[in-house]
Amino acid sequence: MTTNKTATVYVRLKDGVLDPQGVTIQKALSQMGYDDFLSVRTGKFFELEVSGSASDIDRKIDEVCSKLLTNPVIETFEVKK
Amino acid sequence: MTTNKTATVYVRLKDGVLDPQGVTIQKALSQMGYDDFLSVRTGKFFELEVSGSASDIDRKIDEVCSKLLTNPVIETFEVKK
Repeated sequence: MTTNKTATVYVRLKDGVLDPQGVTIQKALSQMGYDDFLSVRTGKFFELEVSGSASDIDRKIDEVCSKLLTNPVIETFEVKK
Repeated sequence: MTTNKTATVYVRLKDGVLDPQGVTIQKALSQMGYDDFLSVRTGKFFELEVSGSASDIDRKIDEVCSKLLTNPVIETFEVKK
């Protein structure tokens, strides 16, 4: 049976990978007077609308995450359905 | 009392605002043979580590979200603590 499903994929930099965008934001906040922001890490997410059978959808989402949406060398992803 | 707190801010484009990055990803997926991905919307998130008193922290996070982290004309944000 074909259904439509929405899933959100959260992509983070792996621990230990430098996050220059986050560092820049943290410095900018500090210069604006917000000294209490100790660290900032950035990430991105994708809201996907997928059609297909339930088991197919899960497999396809995992596939596109590793093939297109993330760089597995420096990033990790988490899928929420 | 001063505490350390972690909060995540999710930033989305408002409904109706065109998301060229999402459209490009959706087209790329389609060309790769993944025709079942009907739509892709992109967003970003920030993981903030903040120190201060509990009420102060909430106010400051809301402030920096509207001042630096988002463009209120085209984006909305959601804070998860």
